[in-house]
Amino acid sequence: MTSPIATAASGTMTKAGMTHLFIPGPTNIPEPVRRAMNVPMQDMRASDFGELTLPLFDGLKRAFKSSTGRVFIFPSSGTGAWEAGITNTLDPGDRVLMSRFGQFSHLWVDMAERLGLEVECIDVDWGAGVPVDLYAERLAADRDGRIKAVFVTHNETATGVTSDVAAVRGALDACGHEALLFVDGVSSIASIDFRMEEWGVDLAVAGSQKGFMLPAGLSFLGVSEKALAASRTGRFRRCYFDFADMLRMNADGFFPYTPPTQLFQGLRVALDLLFDEGLEAVFLRHGRLAEGVRRGVFAWGLDLCAQEPRWYSDTVSAVRVPETVDARDVLRIAYERYRTSFGSGLSQLAGKVFRIGHLGDLNEVSCLTALACAEMALRDAGAAVEPGAGVAAAQEWYRETAEPRRQAVAA
Amino acid sequence: MTSPIATAASGTMTKAGMTHLFIPGPTNIPEPVRRAMNVPMQDMRASDFGELTLPLFDGLKRAFKSSTGRVFIFPSSGTGAWEAGITNTLDPGDRVLMSRFGQFSHLWVDMAERLGLEVECIDVDWGAGVPVDLYAERLAADRDGRIKAVFVTHNETATGVTSDVAAVRGALDACGHEALLFVDGVSSIASIDFRMEEWGVDLAVAGSQKGFMLPAGLSFLGVSEKALAASRTGRFRRCYFDFADMLRMNADGFFPYTPPTQLFQGLRVALDLLFDEGLEAVFLRHGRLAEGVRRGVFAWGLDLCAQEPRWYSDTVSAVRVPETVDARDVLRIAYERYRTSFGSGLSQLAGKVFRIGHLGDLNEVSCLTALACAEMALRDAGAAVEPGAGVAAAQEWYRETAEPRRQAVAA
Amino acid sequence: MTSPIATAASGTMTKAGMTHLFIPGPTNIPEPVRRAMNVPMQDMRASDFGELTLPLFDGLKRAFKSSTGRVFIFPSSGTGAWEAGITNTLDPGDRVLMSRFGQFSHLWVDMAERLGLEVECIDVDWGAGVPVDLYAERLAADRDGRIKAVFVTHNETATGVTSDVAAVRGALDACGHEALLFVDGVSSIASIDFRMEEWGVDLAVAGSQKGFMLPAGLSFLGVSEKALAASRTGRFRRCYFDFADMLRMNADGFFPYTPPTQLFQGLRVALDLLFDEGLEAVFLRHGRLAEGVRRGVFAWGLDLCAQEPRWYSDTVSAVRVPETVDARDVLRIAYERYRTSFGSGLSQLAGKVFRIGHLGDLNEVSCLTALACAEMALRDAGAAVEPGAGVAAAQEWYRETAEPRRQAVAA
Amino acid sequence: MTSPIATAASGTMTKAGMTHLFIPGPTNIPEPVRRAMNVPMQDMRASDFGELTLPLFDGLKRAFKSSTGRVFIFPSSGTGAWEAGITNTLDPGDRVLMSRFGQFSHLWVDMAERLGLEVECIDVDWGAGVPVDLYAERLAADRDGRIKAVFVTHNETATGVTSDVAAVRGALDACGHEALLFVDGVSSIASIDFRMEEWGVDLAVAGSQKGFMLPAGLSFLGVSEKALAASRTGRFRRCYFDFADMLRMNADGFFPYTPPTQLFQGLRVALDLLFDEGLEAVFLRHGRLAEGVRRGVFAWGLDLCAQEPRWYSDTVSAVRVPETVDARDVLRIAYERYRTSFGSGLSQLAGKVFRIGHLGDLNEVSCLTALACAEMALRDAGAAVEPGAGVAAAQEWYRETAEPRRQAVAA
Repeated sequence: MTSPIATAASGTMTKAGMTHLFIPGPTNIPEPVRRAMNVPMQDMRASDFGELTLPLFDGLKRAFKSSTGRVFIFPSSGTGAWEAGITNTLDPGDRVLMSRFGQFSHLWVDMAERLGLEVECIDVDWGAGVPVDLYAERLAADRDGRIKAVFVTHNETATGVTSDVAAVRGALDACGHEALLFVDGVSSIASIDFRMEEWGVDLAVAGSQKGFMLPAGLSFLGVSEKALAASRTGRFRRCYFDFADMLRMNADGFFPYTPPTQLFQGLRVALDLLFDEGLEAVFLRHGRLAEGVRRGVFAWGLDLCAQEPRWYSDTVSAVRVPETVDARDVLRIAYERYRTSFGSGLSQLAGKVFRIGHLGDLNEVSCLTALACAEMALRDAGAAVEPGAGVAAAQEWYRETAEPRRQAVAA
Repeated sequence: MTSPIATAASGTMTKAGMTHLFIPGPTNIPEPVRRAMNVPMQDMRASDFGELTLPLFDGLKRAFKSSTGRVFIFPSSGTGAWEAGITNTLDPGDRVLMSRFGQFSHLWVDMAERLGLEVECIDVDWGAGVPVDLYAERLAADRDGRIKAVFVTHNETATGVTSDVAAVRGALDACGHEALLFVDGVSSIASIDFRMEEWGVDLAVAGSQKGFMLPAGLSFLGVSEKALAASRTGRFRRCYFDFADMLRMNADGFFPYTPPTQLFQGLRVALDLLFDEGLEAVFLRHGRLAEGVRRGVFAWGLDLCAQEPRWYSDTVSAVRVPETVDARDVLRIAYERYRTSFGSGLSQLAGKVFRIGHLGDLNEVSCLTALACAEMALRDAGAAVEPGAGVAAAQEWYRETAEPRRQAVAA
Repeated sequence: MTSPIATAASGTMTKAGMTHLFIPGPTNIPEPVRRAMNVPMQDMRASDFGELTLPLFDGLKRAFKSSTGRVFIFPSSGTGAWEAGITNTLDPGDRVLMSRFGQFSHLWVDMAERLGLEVECIDVDWGAGVPVDLYAERLAADRDGRIKAVFVTHNETATGVTSDVAAVRGALDACGHEALLFVDGVSSIASIDFRMEEWGVDLAVAGSQKGFMLPAGLSFLGVSEKALAASRTGRFRRCYFDFADMLRMNADGFFPYTPPTQLFQGLRVALDLLFDEGLEAVFLRHGRLAEGVRRGVFAWGLDLCAQEPRWYSDTVSAVRVPETVDARDVLRIAYERYRTSFGSGLSQLAGKVFRIGHLGDLNEVSCLTALACAEMALRDAGAAVEPGAGVAAAQEWYRETAEPRRQAVAA
Repeated sequence: MTSPIATAASGTMTKAGMTHLFIPGPTNIPEPVRRAMNVPMQDMRASDFGELTLPLFDGLKRAFKSSTGRVFIFPSSGTGAWEAGITNTLDPGDRVLMSRFGQFSHLWVDMAERLGLEVECIDVDWGAGVPVDLYAERLAADRDGRIKAVFVTHNETATGVTSDVAAVRGALDACGHEALLFVDGVSSIASIDFRMEEWGVDLAVAGSQKGFMLPAGLSFLGVSEKALAASRTGRFRRCYFDFADMLRMNADGFFPYTPPTQLFQGLRVALDLLFDEGLEAVFLRHGRLAEGVRRGVFAWGLDLCAQEPRWYSDTVSAVRVPETVDARDVLRIAYERYRTSFGSGLSQLAGKVFRIGHLGDLNEVSCLTALACAEMALRDAGAAVEPGAGVAAAQEWYRETAEPRRQAVAA
């Protein structure tokens, strides 16, 4: 390329314009949420503090779809809520059934082992999800109920794989197994279908920085009545994450230690946005946006990490790059040259996939932005994808599924 | 389209995600500018107020490329600065030479007439720019110097046409004409090449909401020493826009009335961003981004309103839609269905063009966003553009002209 | 003072803590208003823009207490609205009746003269208000109706004097005079009692940065039907401030030029705050807060500039310092040493008064803050006021008039 | 009170004006910090993320005054850092020496016990501080080194008592005791003199919401090389608060889980503010402001909870109300009637004290605000304090110790 403009333009790359963020969390903050957090500090012991916090607990239960039990708010990342769930409801040495098929399910297994649980871990290809059949076998075989909890990573963020929680509940019920059902819903809850109560989930973990469209800093832990009962006798030593302290203080809307009130203000608005749109509409929107991204990926001639459509996640797509391409180049080029962040391939997927996060506060044009940038970065990194092909495939899907088309034209 | 997902997705269009803004002003506010304006009110008569304001005057002169004269800051839109320029330096009944080739040059003529100037207006096709040859003829013919000012719309925002200010200066100089040179640079200054002093511009108008990347609310009026001298004897009745009041108060950094200090805080940062990037780099960036958009438009098989490459504006492209399409549908669909704002066709261009603003705080991925959305809206409105074609053409241009490609891959 | 701590503390004055702002405008911005303005730019030609703006016009009429006519919003300071009022409804050479008793009424007279009106100006002591009796005499004597407009500075911000607009209306009516009644309500409207329609005000000027609790940048001009009719034949040359352009564009919620949309977002919330509190409650609050400040001033043994209680302004108190003290020292010390801004004495009052603004988003504790700081600054500047005396007097007033005392204690 | 105004004013109390915040944390956020946090989300795995985070670690070490070891940043409250310190460096069953003289030292003892340490707790009057002599005795008696750690609450926030950390170090050194020195500096570090390295502190806890002037959400844990060594063999089960994970990820500026990046942006600016002012200047400012508050309290004829001047805290003053008054009334009246938050009396001090926080981003006028409001609330609650007396005493102190007085007057 030797046009005068191109030559002149060399070296003109600047920090101009917005950074485009397509990681699977933290997600983009809606403007009303951002505004709501721009507040002075407030007194977390004020007599009217509960007017802010008590409805948040209710709202979270609604988002988790549970009318019983509790949703605790911990000032921590989602990892903290994992720890809270384990240390309050299980005992050291308890046997638990887990599966590993991505970096986050891997880390969860690692935590369980480090905290002293006896982990029965089923390894599965990274690209598949929870092996419900194997779970069913193990549970059926566990006649004396040695398995105290079954762990399900609902949406493995590292591979873009969504698993079938209801089916795991079915497996438990089929053999009448009493184990607690512990679900990591960090990248699913408030974005895709999740039904804590209907699915008999006992512990459900979410974080502020995904479907709840907030900065990181809060974890949410849904706890069933059964898990609350278990917590009363749990023998793990714990303090920061102790349910009992939370229960006592939360009763009046207070916390055992100073909570991040700005995030509470943001959570108020985030919940309002979710409920105003409607949870089911939110789920459909995620499905529609994700399908456009997937069509774009397939139009490139590339595959997802998720091996079968039933595993496809509506919140994140892990894209396998051609063998001749290093996905790390795609990421670096996108970030350094085009001011766009995608998610990286983690652990055994490093260099093999890049991930497009499509959850939270997004619309179809934003997804086209992601695809348009990815095409440039892929081509720059040596992938033979056709320019515009992914964008075109997604555009047509979004156009087909855009409801108000007729009115707008007819108006 | 009858897939279950599509059907299910019907009606799911929500207010989710950001609104994508591609109007030719107000432009997108850079995050640092936005942050800078988020301040409590301050005392505009405080002893140290000049520490904020005096450097702003200097910075504006640098942005206008003038080492002499003044740049005034009026709390008004750019229209106010038009009026300030006329009413301070001319007299009622003065003859002025103008040309009209778009809605904004039209409005300027209208103002001049309403304020009582005797306007010699040359009408030109909307799509061309200032007729320098005709200007030269009129000026040469005006031997007794009845023409007191020559008006040039540097960048006609309605048509995406950039005119040649230096050539008008050449025409004035060629016949030794003494008329003031009055330039509307609202959508050019700080975005594309503008040289107040070198081009001998006497009055230059800019607004906060274009290349200066601020909200609307401030106009900037560059005034040469010659124009300042003229203002001392100007016989228009004026008060709000009077230079003399400004000169007296500005000397110590104050204003004759309460100015919008939040915008001053933003202007400080906006100027810093412009100078950190470098004005020449800013101009090159606009050229590179604009060229990508133009390539996209041509790949659709569509034309620009600007009739020749020499008129192409690097800040806004007015796209002619096919005759069978109503550009108002494109705009409405983009806005209502896809949360994206383009500029409308104004006056005689209504329904015939839509405009893509590509000035201010933008990067190449944002321009792809604009093209990707426009493709959907065009197709929804009935235009037979190929999906992804415009995006692809722009991608390849941006890739070719992206400097740091080699380093990133090689790293 | 030679204690080790004091010595050590020397030189420790820093920029720590908030700046305390007690100028009579710009006033402190309420947090919800500040948040509302923290938005990205928006398309001022979008089809739904009127959903934002049309209710603003209604809200302003409600704040002005007028069910007829218009309230225009100009992107300008209040000075611009003065000019808009004059140039739209009067003709060059028209005779007008004005009075001058402070810097702002002075500037208004100055503008009227510069714009070519024939001003019949009554000078009054700075400290008194509009001379209604003299107005009545002049109007009664003006049998052939040469006086086209009567100007009333409702609240002279420079002296802290509120005048009786209703009485001027009475004087007009008493002799059946047809002159327009033009009121400067910049520091009164939305803070103290103002009734545009009931008082037969034809033109009423307000600014965003006073009772409307916004940054500077917008002026509001209430215009009666009679004044609108006058504007149709007004012979002043005007464009930026022309009513006709505004009327045409405002009909659908648009503006003749790019308006400051951030301020519109803020105005929406500011109006909501005013109406939620209730205008009458807002006025009572200002009266109660002002009375506390006045009691504090009197407890210092000092006088107000306002000569009689009937002139006392509830939005600003101009405090006369002892003859041996230079009020400029008080201001400088307050600002430089104690990070607190008061208003200065303007023109003939320079050095003789400092002004405490107590309008907008304030409560009683903030007024105590103002008094507490003023006491330090006064003493530092050499005034023999008793430490704490003003604060104590105000405290007792605020305590006496604080309604919910009994409930709180009894609870 | 029957004046017409007072009667009219009844019921006019509104939510107008700012809320005045004088709790001992969360403290008021400086405007630049608030602005810095108003950012979009960012990619916490971006290649340049360490450019933000690595200097934060350095800055924290500087604030802790340690050139060796580490300061960890945990997404948690300070309570989390307590737990991190214990669980990483001690073993279940370890004997530790603690003292209890307020709610926060009480909670720390409680945590140590719940986590399974063998706590040797010395109870001291609430109002005194760490009993250094008794510590010295116990340490000297502990010849076989069974005490593994000595805990010091540097500033007991509940009573406004500052203890002598250096003296405890002296006691350890005097008998050559090897125990770790564990300091709670939540309400001291970055506000008053703290020297991690010089005092041989092994574990030091701080939180974002006190002297660091940020919202709650981060805890900072300073860890000496000796404590780091201990952590390598610590036998507590831990995961979220594990040093090893942090050490590994922090090396490149990353975190084991998603951290709250907005707070990191704020921390950057908060550290800049602290270092620009200078830590020693910050400490002197706190001392000067606190002394003014104390003089105000004594002028009311009231006592502090802190029993002797050597215990007086420069960050919070716990004020004992007269026996006939319930401090809860003072708090409720201040909050509900005067929009002002003070700290409550906790546990055995409930009803007996209210606390004035005077740490973080404050200046003298803000302290006068606190006193002026407290006087009203005290009197409303039945305390016979003289109106204005406390304000006057503080004013005189602030005036005496305000350095730039002479220049300002002389200028």
